[in-house]
Amino acid sequence: MPNLEIKLDRHRYQIHIDSWNPALVIRELHKLTSDKVFIITNATIAKLYRSKLNSIFRKLIAVEWIIIPDGERYKTLSTCERIHVTLSRKGAHRKSVLVALGGGVVGDITGFVAATYMRGIRFVQMPTTLLAQVDSSVGGKTGVDLPTGKNLVGAFHQPHAVFIFTDFLKTLPKRELSCGLAEVIKYGIIQDEAFLNFLSTRATKILNLESKSLQHIIFNSCRIKARIVELDEKENNLRAVLNFGHTLGHALETATGYKKFKHGEAVALGMLFALSLSYETGLAKVDHSPEITLLLNVFGLPTRLKSIQVDDLMTAMKSDKKKTSQNIRFILVGKIGTTLQSEIEPKVIRSCLQKLLKKSQ
Amino acid sequence: MPNLEIKLDRHRYQIHIDSWNPALVIRELHKLTSDKVFIITNATIAKLYRSKLNSIFRKLIAVEWIIIPDGERYKTLSTCERIHVTLSRKGAHRKSVLVALGGGVVGDITGFVAATYMRGIRFVQMPTTLLAQVDSSVGGKTGVDLPTGKNLVGAFHQPHAVFIFTDFLKTLPKRELSCGLAEVIKYGIIQDEAFLNFLSTRATKILNLESKSLQHIIFNSCRIKARIVELDEKENNLRAVLNFGHTLGHALETATGYKKFKHGEAVALGMLFALSLSYETGLAKVDHSPEITLLLNVFGLPTRLKSIQVDDLMTAMKSDKKKTSQNIRFILVGKIGTTLQSEIEPKVIRSCLQKLLKKSQ
Repeated sequence: MPNLEIKLDRHRYQIHIDSWNPALVIRELHKLTSDKVFIITNATIAKLYRSKLNSIFRKLIAVEWIIIPDGERYKTLSTCERIHVTLSRKGAHRKSVLVALGGGVVGDITGFVAATYMRGIRFVQMPTTLLAQVDSSVGGKTGVDLPTGKNLVGAFHQPHAVFIFTDFLKTLPKRELSCGLAEVIKYGIIQDEAFLNFLSTRATKILNLESKSLQHIIFNSCRIKARIVELDEKENNLRAVLNFGHTLGHALETATGYKKFKHGEAVALGMLFALSLSYETGLAKVDHSPEITLLLNVFGLPTRLKSIQVDDLMTAMKSDKKKTSQNIRFILVGKIGTTLQSEIEPKVIRSCLQKLLKKSQ
Repeated sequence: MPNLEIKLDRHRYQIHIDSWNPALVIRELHKLTSDKVFIITNATIAKLYRSKLNSIFRKLIAVEWIIIPDGERYKTLSTCERIHVTLSRKGAHRKSVLVALGGGVVGDITGFVAATYMRGIRFVQMPTTLLAQVDSSVGGKTGVDLPTGKNLVGAFHQPHAVFIFTDFLKTLPKRELSCGLAEVIKYGIIQDEAFLNFLSTRATKILNLESKSLQHIIFNSCRIKARIVELDEKENNLRAVLNFGHTLGHALETATGYKKFKHGEAVALGMLFALSLSYETGLAKVDHSPEITLLLNVFGLPTRLKSIQVDDLMTAMKSDKKKTSQNIRFILVGKIGTTLQSEIEPKVIRSCLQKLLKKSQ
């Protein structure tokens, strides 16, 4: 796979995609520092990969491991402070480099720690979940949760390199793999019909973790996200297209207390709803939801909206932090690959939700 | 006083200097937002100014007060998190504006909260101490302390406006006023001999809080700092000149557990030492420390280094986080207004320290 270069206004970096290549990581880290590096990971990943990576790293580069507990509930400022203090005790300085080894939570926390330790130090990412590989590698969003909401504290801070190795996916639970695939499908729907077709025709290879196919879908997902982010580095209107499927998706997560659905599963249902809405409002001449239902099913994602109250979803959507009027903002899709941001009246949403619930019985 | 415009690479803002002009604050806030603003202050300032400001603000702009305890020991991530949570409960959003009303601690915390709430919102400063007025108004440094050291967590985040009212200094303890004057003297020594002369000739007016003289010294201090920071927005070598007096200053604070000296007092002694060192090393043809001793005395600042061990100071200076070799970095002064950054051998420093201690007996 060729590298993908991310070109931002004042910073550029490479996304390296391979099946497994820790020697490359060491080479690239040597370019950034001659000092020891700090690997930040969670207990689950440390158990799976610490000794394996240490056996390769040991003679070539000095590393310190900082291990945090596994789980979104640890994505807090106090976990960050524990890391800050450990870094300062272990002698990290302005020229030190952090390595984020893990999924989205590890990436978000490590990025935020890097953004704020001594007013900003460098970090690189080694994402171990498909979701983090296709989503967190591009965009520079870092942050933590508050008791009052997710990702309310954070900073924009870009990595100096990203290393994506598909072999990490061999230890990833299948349900997590499916969640990553939901975002991959999203990139196809919003930007690239050919890529969406690739996902259909290579579904079995992808699900069997065939490395070349995985590398292809990761490369293209990052490429699509990068194109959008490069045009809109700080979050403005353009980048909103990445929220396709997320209006209902977030509402589903909120209304079910983040327990029933994983993020990718909620987004899968959110995408189907946004496609139905696109057809109902007349923007799409064809209803794309049947073909996407099929694809989501193949990839182990939910396609039926059950045991949920329309009122609860409406309430959750109305309290979205990006909302500015009575209407609710959706990303709609006309032809596959073309999107439109639109404010939809609550009664239209409600009626479309009721239809979807009926169909799901 | 004319406004001072701070021009940075991607951002510019005005420093407004006046004796007392809350109507101006309201006018400027109206330009930034039509929504309510959040005033962050400490308990001491709230007691002195909350009802006074409320009586002016009430009919013109909606404000919410967020009050934190007074003291550097509360400059922590957990104070920030309390503010973050309060902001989110009170409905602060991406377009909200914070007001930092207080001294350096309130400014550092509010700036860091603004830098990180929803990945960055806008804030303005209303510094109430002379130190904050002449130091924190320019530079964009925000941050909090860790148990392992001061200002180890932070971000660069620029204010959208600064409002400096000299009437706030009427309620400032005299010792705090002196500490601010130490930094004012610093600006004169490193950049501007005429300004240093102004301080000598207007000493009584300044100490009597005559507003025009105070506005003059604040304007010129901010102007000098701004000129340095504009040339060097992120901390690079150039900006190091602002650390004049801080090498020994920091060491004095550390070696005495931050109890004996306030920051400005430690810097006063540090400046005298750096001047002696400048003369001892031959950079300065004239020893400026006698004239500066006089000025520091007039302004109520300490000029004698007593009851302290040379070894403790040497240890503290060697562990400075900006250090890169065996030698210790100092900002030296040749003629008043011209500086040189220099790495000094420990034995030279030790001998000069011993002389100063002897002279102070």
